[in-house]
Amino acid sequence: MPTSLKNEAAIVGIGQTEFSKRSGRSELQLAAEAVKAALADAGLTPADVDGMTTFSMDTSQEIEVARAVGIGDLTFFSRVEYGGGAAIGVMLHAAMAVATGAAKTVVVYRAFNERSERRYSTGISEGIATSDMIHWSWYLPFGLMTPASWVAMFTQRYLHDYGCPVEALGQVAVSTRKHAVNNPNAWFHGRPITLAEHAESRMISEPLRLLDCCQESDGGCAQVITSVERARDLRRKPAVIRGVAQAAGANQEQMTSFYRPSISFLPEMDLVAKQVYATSGLRPDDVDAAIIYDAFTPIVLWQLESSGFCRRGEAKDFVQGGTNLEIGGRLPTNTNGGQLSEADIHGLNGVNEGVRLIRGTSVNQPPKADHVLVTGGVGVPTSGMILGKE
Amino acid sequence: MPTSLKNEAAIVGIGQTEFSKRSGRSELQLAAEAVKAALADAGLTPADVDGMTTFSMDTSQEIEVARAVGIGDLTFFSRVEYGGGAAIGVMLHAAMAVATGAAKTVVVYRAFNERSERRYSTGISEGIATSDMIHWSWYLPFGLMTPASWVAMFTQRYLHDYGCPVEALGQVAVSTRKHAVNNPNAWFHGRPITLAEHAESRMISEPLRLLDCCQESDGGCAQVITSVERARDLRRKPAVIRGVAQAAGANQEQMTSFYRPSISFLPEMDLVAKQVYATSGLRPDDVDAAIIYDAFTPIVLWQLESSGFCRRGEAKDFVQGGTNLEIGGRLPTNTNGGQLSEADIHGLNGVNEGVRLIRGTSVNQPPKADHVLVTGGVGVPTSGMILGKE
Repeated sequence: MPTSLKNEAAIVGIGQTEFSKRSGRSELQLAAEAVKAALADAGLTPADVDGMTTFSMDTSQEIEVARAVGIGDLTFFSRVEYGGGAAIGVMLHAAMAVATGAAKTVVVYRAFNERSERRYSTGISEGIATSDMIHWSWYLPFGLMTPASWVAMFTQRYLHDYGCPVEALGQVAVSTRKHAVNNPNAWFHGRPITLAEHAESRMISEPLRLLDCCQESDGGCAQVITSVERARDLRRKPAVIRGVAQAAGANQEQMTSFYRPSISFLPEMDLVAKQVYATSGLRPDDVDAAIIYDAFTPIVLWQLESSGFCRRGEAKDFVQGGTNLEIGGRLPTNTNGGQLSEADIHGLNGVNEGVRLIRGTSVNQPPKADHVLVTGGVGVPTSGMILGKE
Repeated sequence: MPTSLKNEAAIVGIGQTEFSKRSGRSELQLAAEAVKAALADAGLTPADVDGMTTFSMDTSQEIEVARAVGIGDLTFFSRVEYGGGAAIGVMLHAAMAVATGAAKTVVVYRAFNERSERRYSTGISEGIATSDMIHWSWYLPFGLMTPASWVAMFTQRYLHDYGCPVEALGQVAVSTRKHAVNNPNAWFHGRPITLAEHAESRMISEPLRLLDCCQESDGGCAQVITSVERARDLRRKPAVIRGVAQAAGANQEQMTSFYRPSISFLPEMDLVAKQVYATSGLRPDDVDAAIIYDAFTPIVLWQLESSGFCRRGEAKDFVQGGTNLEIGGRLPTNTNGGQLSEADIHGLNGVNEGVRLIRGTSVNQPPKADHVLVTGGVGVPTSGMILGKE
């Protein structure tokens, strides 16, 4: 009989390289360094690993990372498509492997030279799946070539439909960067911004300004996942996966689902939240803090709504003044500075921060963090999980 | 607690397009046609599907196939790397999804214009993972650029170490094509070959001759996988997955693991067999028939040994005269004609034949087929499963 993924697996080690704009080394090396760091954090060795999973977009094959690090036989390996949407999908796959016995100890990794080698903001130029090219061909000729341009389409409609002021975007930008100020690993370390600076920053794709956009970063992150039972014997307090899910909505395109009845919300985000709450038995009220995928500021607003922290269209009120999003507020969010101002490691740096919140070791540790929501990229097929304490 | 994947999931529908050398249509269309055929075979509709998995190499994204076919929300999607090694890896992933509740009904697909668009035999030209390029760079400059050339390296050593005559390769070629003769879908339909014809066929990469090499084919295959419990209510006799596994061996490279202590066998094949027997509780003696990945004839010999049908180095005796491999023999193998002579759909046409054997509907149905071994490509990280009756 089907089991469920409630409390089956836990994140027991986290690792990362430095985050930079030019790593000066290969993506494979970044992946290997992050994996080694995660294993060291867990108190495990490469010989303990028997499963690996990463993004389809990652350029370093599982077996190449395994050889580089000294990992031996593998009995599980998988990939997840759809860019940052895979961030928690890989956690689902790892948890599935642990729960079914396909592997005992799974390493998740993602590493890239996103700034120095392949800038995502420069638009589509390579590596598109053939089938995917069909739908891109409807948008690329009209200049919709970058992530910002696609998200801007949804954002314009959202602002219109719900009377959301652009200041709500600015508030997300400001509150998130406030967290980065305390984080030595963050690009915005020591550099707070104001609402006025947000409003005056360069327009990228209306209504998105420079300070609405995440970093492009070089770096790597990794996690080690094993069973909750085994986690009890390891050196770190485990971050238990209470519920975890992937979702693609009906009629979804990769980033450009513009032909649905409404484009002011993304139904797959709702579907992830529904599953994660159902599996965990938790409700939004039980969630103390959140790592919400923030490639752009508006997607934080939408996910606050989809995850049930406020009603549809009311995120503008939830974020007003920033108190809810900041330490001491209702839902301290992206306490590492997020992708907006720590780094963009495709969401896996957010997973590491989610684990720190559960461990109580964030540089911006909220007074209570018993349950933390962590989400994957949206627009694409997405993913999410709730982490909890043992 | 971890479950196991014994008797959790079943293949309840199989579908395929025609196999040809020029399909005349897109890979996306081939995928969609195969998926529709598999759902029709299962008596299910696109609305029943909530999970999809395919090869990393497939050019058709899950959501593009979903939209083309009319599949709605998805709660599980995954990819498996390493070409034909993924053939049963995708079955593992689908079984994991069903067993953990991540999805109820998973569609597996693989479709390509391997002959008319991207011939694998022409050597490496595109689409190599960056990390993978590092190891290829040791072999490509010396002319080791094609699958046949890499497999030939292992084959030479195997023939030498075990005193295996090239006639053993010929026997696999002849016995497999004997099955194709009866299969209207096979490239070698109605065209038997002799040992002499094999021995005289064009040398491709010593010792591999043309008739040692599989087809390059255009086409698509798909399967529908759900729980054994649900399978009982569907129209076809289910092919129950009794055990299923992936494996990558230590120090494995993609197709070129030439620096291991021995290159006359591939330890990951052993690791797959070990897992599949352990999960299923079955032994080689329990297996009545086999679909053994046959991109080239020698890899059938190696897998017969790794799967325990004969001892290391003794496959030459096992295949002698062909009686063991043919209908009425100990282990009727590749009863569809295999990739050597039906078509190469990266192993998923073999999965369809494995299901037919369990259903009793193969054009070469052996008298007994209670348990059928089906394997994925080797040289790469690989996979395998045992199918059984309900």
